[in-house]
Amino acid sequence: MKKLRIGLIGYGFMGRAHSNAYRKVGNFFDVEHECVLQAVCARDAAKAKEFAARWGYQSVETDWRKLIARDDIDVVDICVPNNLHAEISIAAAKAGKMILCEKPLAMDGGEGKKMVAAVEKAKVPNMVWYNYRRIPAVTLAKQLIDEGRLGKIFHYRAKFLQDWTISADLPQGGTGLWRLDVKAAGSGVTGDLLAHCIDTALWLNGGIATVNAMTETFIKQRKHTLTGKVEKVGIDDACAFLARFNNGALATFESTRYARGHKALYTFEINGEHASIFWDLHDLHRLQYFDHRDEGLVRGWRSIHVSDGDQPYMKHWWVPGLQIGYEHSFIHQVADFLKGIETGKPAGPTFRDALETQHVCDAVLASAKTDAWQKVKTSAK
Amino acid sequence: MKKLRIGLIGYGFMGRAHSNAYRKVGNFFDVEHECVLQAVCARDAAKAKEFAARWGYQSVETDWRKLIARDDIDVVDICVPNNLHAEISIAAAKAGKMILCEKPLAMDGGEGKKMVAAVEKAKVPNMVWYNYRRIPAVTLAKQLIDEGRLGKIFHYRAKFLQDWTISADLPQGGTGLWRLDVKAAGSGVTGDLLAHCIDTALWLNGGIATVNAMTETFIKQRKHTLTGKVEKVGIDDACAFLARFNNGALATFESTRYARGHKALYTFEINGEHASIFWDLHDLHRLQYFDHRDEGLVRGWRSIHVSDGDQPYMKHWWVPGLQIGYEHSFIHQVADFLKGIETGKPAGPTFRDALETQHVCDAVLASAKTDAWQKVKTSAK
Amino acid sequence: MKKLRIGLIGYGFMGRAHSNAYRKVGNFFDVEHECVLQAVCARDAAKAKEFAARWGYQSVETDWRKLIARDDIDVVDICVPNNLHAEISIAAAKAGKMILCEKPLAMDGGEGKKMVAAVEKAKVPNMVWYNYRRIPAVTLAKQLIDEGRLGKIFHYRAKFLQDWTISADLPQGGTGLWRLDVKAAGSGVTGDLLAHCIDTALWLNGGIATVNAMTETFIKQRKHTLTGKVEKVGIDDACAFLARFNNGALATFESTRYARGHKALYTFEINGEHASIFWDLHDLHRLQYFDHRDEGLVRGWRSIHVSDGDQPYMKHWWVPGLQIGYEHSFIHQVADFLKGIETGKPAGPTFRDALETQHVCDAVLASAKTDAWQKVKTSAK
Amino acid sequence: MKKLRIGLIGYGFMGRAHSNAYRKVGNFFDVEHECVLQAVCARDAAKAKEFAARWGYQSVETDWRKLIARDDIDVVDICVPNNLHAEISIAAAKAGKMILCEKPLAMDGGEGKKMVAAVEKAKVPNMVWYNYRRIPAVTLAKQLIDEGRLGKIFHYRAKFLQDWTISADLPQGGTGLWRLDVKAAGSGVTGDLLAHCIDTALWLNGGIATVNAMTETFIKQRKHTLTGKVEKVGIDDACAFLARFNNGALATFESTRYARGHKALYTFEINGEHASIFWDLHDLHRLQYFDHRDEGLVRGWRSIHVSDGDQPYMKHWWVPGLQIGYEHSFIHQVADFLKGIETGKPAGPTFRDALETQHVCDAVLASAKTDAWQKVKTSAK
Repeated sequence: MKKLRIGLIGYGFMGRAHSNAYRKVGNFFDVEHECVLQAVCARDAAKAKEFAARWGYQSVETDWRKLIARDDIDVVDICVPNNLHAEISIAAAKAGKMILCEKPLAMDGGEGKKMVAAVEKAKVPNMVWYNYRRIPAVTLAKQLIDEGRLGKIFHYRAKFLQDWTISADLPQGGTGLWRLDVKAAGSGVTGDLLAHCIDTALWLNGGIATVNAMTETFIKQRKHTLTGKVEKVGIDDACAFLARFNNGALATFESTRYARGHKALYTFEINGEHASIFWDLHDLHRLQYFDHRDEGLVRGWRSIHVSDGDQPYMKHWWVPGLQIGYEHSFIHQVADFLKGIETGKPAGPTFRDALETQHVCDAVLASAKTDAWQKVKTSAK
Repeated sequence: MKKLRIGLIGYGFMGRAHSNAYRKVGNFFDVEHECVLQAVCARDAAKAKEFAARWGYQSVETDWRKLIARDDIDVVDICVPNNLHAEISIAAAKAGKMILCEKPLAMDGGEGKKMVAAVEKAKVPNMVWYNYRRIPAVTLAKQLIDEGRLGKIFHYRAKFLQDWTISADLPQGGTGLWRLDVKAAGSGVTGDLLAHCIDTALWLNGGIATVNAMTETFIKQRKHTLTGKVEKVGIDDACAFLARFNNGALATFESTRYARGHKALYTFEINGEHASIFWDLHDLHRLQYFDHRDEGLVRGWRSIHVSDGDQPYMKHWWVPGLQIGYEHSFIHQVADFLKGIETGKPAGPTFRDALETQHVCDAVLASAKTDAWQKVKTSAK
Repeated sequence: MKKLRIGLIGYGFMGRAHSNAYRKVGNFFDVEHECVLQAVCARDAAKAKEFAARWGYQSVETDWRKLIARDDIDVVDICVPNNLHAEISIAAAKAGKMILCEKPLAMDGGEGKKMVAAVEKAKVPNMVWYNYRRIPAVTLAKQLIDEGRLGKIFHYRAKFLQDWTISADLPQGGTGLWRLDVKAAGSGVTGDLLAHCIDTALWLNGGIATVNAMTETFIKQRKHTLTGKVEKVGIDDACAFLARFNNGALATFESTRYARGHKALYTFEINGEHASIFWDLHDLHRLQYFDHRDEGLVRGWRSIHVSDGDQPYMKHWWVPGLQIGYEHSFIHQVADFLKGIETGKPAGPTFRDALETQHVCDAVLASAKTDAWQKVKTSAK
Repeated sequence: MKKLRIGLIGYGFMGRAHSNAYRKVGNFFDVEHECVLQAVCARDAAKAKEFAARWGYQSVETDWRKLIARDDIDVVDICVPNNLHAEISIAAAKAGKMILCEKPLAMDGGEGKKMVAAVEKAKVPNMVWYNYRRIPAVTLAKQLIDEGRLGKIFHYRAKFLQDWTISADLPQGGTGLWRLDVKAAGSGVTGDLLAHCIDTALWLNGGIATVNAMTETFIKQRKHTLTGKVEKVGIDDACAFLARFNNGALATFESTRYARGHKALYTFEINGEHASIFWDLHDLHRLQYFDHRDEGLVRGWRSIHVSDGDQPYMKHWWVPGLQIGYEHSFIHQVADFLKGIETGKPAGPTFRDALETQHVCDAVLASAKTDAWQKVKTSAK
């Protein structure tokens, strides 16, 4: 078995999810590569060591440049705040490493373009962790659409609702809270949550032509953990936008961290001429499907428990009726990444794919700023 | 238009539901008869008058014998406690009246047999108010079964769960509480709630051969409203039973007034070789349907919103998506009763049909008493 | 009992719903007025007679001017296409009639202002049939908000999704299809469906300051029933808009007749600082409620089956667990209208209230046309 | 870190679930032991090797006796058909090994008693894989009950419904199908599925006093994979029973493999004086909770998304809103087993606990055979 030596940068929530994926993929999928946890990198040496011990990383680094410079690393996995994605990615590409980068790709499209140029010039396999594509129910949705079952698409609507930042006492910045600090995150819910919705939407329904957005920052000032001072909040707490897809479909997108009762409610619904689809992250193992071609008398939304062997990815897991969870989407992504390098057909989303999401985010933020419709740039070659 | 002159005995919850049905049926259904609210009968003259004024009854009686004796009454509608059903029904039959009797038919099968004999001898149209047959979703279930869509039936399960008698302070007997008084009700949940479940089951799945039951009275003594004394509670607070249908299906039935969180949760589920059906009174306008012949990839329980014009009874109401409620089942029953007398094909459940339910109830109570399986008598001619 | 003599203009879907309400209100509510079905008016005399016979109207008219001129009519109820609302209303006001007008109030705000002026000058009781306010679950939502349970409101989102006009073969214009004819309807889903969403929203969450909309007409041409020719479709098939409320809440609204699987899915969700509310017309008897002040361990969305006597309107109906349906909202509205004239405290929505909804609709359509945010005019005195 | 060397016997569905648990527990839980995958044992050497390679077992055996005899094995994990549990367990106990045995404990109570005697005599840590206790929502249910929130319990109902054996073409016996062969399995759904329901019930609601059951074998003969002949089917395809708990609660239990539409629908509901609980394996991350002490106006079933850090086990996983799946119950069980040996307070269910479930199963099967109520033996010391 070929070895693929992973160098992980960052050890937070995503560091754990990725490490788990590398460790499990070979138990459940027939892949030609063994993922070797070669090194984890974090500025805090003690924490890096603790993480390495828990997950079985064979070494630690405290400087990502050193990690990239090592000969015994094949893949660089970037799990640090958004403001570091570009610099590390470009350096890693120059060093000829394969790159798996957390989402969103970059702070903005400008950065993203440079990153795409770097990986394409270096011809290194690259992928961005938009993991929700590989929830089996979402992958099934893609399959149904690609088979033409929905017919012409009229509507797309997506939401990502959370409620964890309603308290004004929550500070911004620092470990676990960098998502509230515009310098580290680039934006608020737009890059953090809507980016997921947009990635799925582009994958399922093609390109977005134009957008019209509004954003709001409900809490204007928060104490900054790093400076200790009360500072202006630079991120968007909520963002909603209208959109038109290239295929003529109308869309609404919305995200917020101020929706009481919703922890991580990512939902999407697609209405086609013949059929409709609905999915919901809080019950991620189900797909709701309505087919108007069903006989009228017994027509209704079907609640599909996506746990059968003929449904995407599920033959690798347990038996019908037994659900998998959130973390499995990462395992599927690693399996597909490996298959991509084994077959020479890269799995998506690549950096270039993710740049398209970045362009939509940029247009959304520009629209909110200008109170006007904005065209979306394309990242297609 | 022919007139059908109604004489209503009793003015409680059911008196209201029936009166509403008589008043509305002609607005929504094309029937040849006009239901005329001729007289209402109640022992308390003041209450009878108040009820008559509210609902438009043209006269009142305080003695049901006088009502039955009147020439200007075509239909006697019996909405009084169970212990009076037999006497009134038999007298009404002798007087040549059509009879609509509240459920359960009788205090027991012995009484029921006499009632059946009386109406059949008198050849008067007769029906029992097992209204749930005519909830559109339930009628649709019947239609699907009759079309053979389910194939061989393996399982039937029904429950009727309530929680309104948990307090030990609730008295027994008197207005609104006669259901807790065994002398007026005959039994507790068995005759009150399970009788509904059994009627539907016999209609949907044919006869029940044998039963095995347990009952419980959680609160042993309650103050009696009529005597003012604390008296032994004679009814069953809860009853569960196993059953085997003539068609080989296995069944579980359960009812209680001690299930916190359930106001009137009547549910049934039927599992056939090819398809399954589930229904729930708390969302009565929906039928859940699973068809295994659907393509595996997109197979799931269908939540059918029964509000389309091609679904039972619904063309008479509003437009797709707009639900009707509980009271409409009574209107449907009156519509079908009228159609029955207009066409000469009596609508069910007749007294004879309801006797079969009574026999099951008797067997259930006998089984609980003897701790043994009991065969069910048949009421078929 | 005082008599209130109703003159109904129009005999379609709404004519039936209103007639049913007048006939039933006295059976279930303690009101001082008896609604007398005095006359129904329709251009087609045969149809008017048939309708009168079915519902018990005592006379018919074929010219609405004659109806209004009659001395024996107290209330004029307008159930005709939108383009006739203004003319009839203004004439009826001048004749001193009370007026109940179907929604939307008018073809646009200009018309609406004149109508408001007319009824206010004439000092006649007036109301618009935005019936959804009086679905018990929606009224309960209002009560919870007014009690301050939600705290500061961050988000409002509403949708009204249907799927009945997807076929290109469906013609526009004529009986039952005037909603597709811009000359009769004024607009498409905006006035027909979003108007309902907006009325509820203004009632629950106060005024809307600004909107930003997009509309689409998916099928550009349809045969016109009246002319027999294929003509341009002038209505909006779909409309989505962003909005900001005066209280700072962000909102998304959407409506379409191209959402497969949805017959009449009106939903709204409100997210407040402390609690959230969700409601859905397809299961109209339930309110979903999330209260963050519940203990964390057992916190979750509560599915409230609104059928208890202490919940709005429900003491007038059956017993807990037994649901009512769509038509009951009209009965409640008549009950409240009667109570309004009995107490001198008019029930809403009055014409003036409905004008505010009209102003939002106007701003929405203007925004879609101009691709720009639009301020909403206020109708407050 | 101390090492705990695992010897796994069997490599099927459960072999995978357990191996996954051993590999992951240390990544997510702070335990003092490292689980070392020392050896896997299977009669087929090639398959054993393949399994060892995939999961990282360091050696293979083809004779379980040799595995047990090895000095470098601390824990014997038994994942073979039921008819081998007793012999292997007793031998392992004699060899002083800790034992983790798949459920049900034994072919019957007689065997089970000997197994309990063996492990208790040898004083070896022992546990049975009734994994559903450690689905977080189920553990939360236990916690709520132990805190007394439900009050006196009136009702318990549990079902385990599947639909995978409806085809008459399915053979009995052999790999994957030994569950249909009475010689290997001992019983059908009673030992396979109801045993799970009973284990949870005893844990949540205490001992069962008496039972009354019916069983059915719908397909009487099936081809036997091992003999190649059509043979009588000895297992129960379906089993339903009534029960009375020691605490006075009434219960219904049912299981079948003939319920179309249900893959693995294990559900239980408990109704107490104050509150009720419902859980469902098909949406295992949710607990439905109804508390009658909630204010009446907003009382309803709460759908608790069990994914918060203060809910059982969840602080070890991801962030609120992100669900875990079936396999995690095994990881939790290993974590608790390790904690049990580290603290000296053994985690349940021990062999003795599981014997109590066995006694209920025995009484159920005896009742079905005799058509009579049966008392349940107790396994308490």
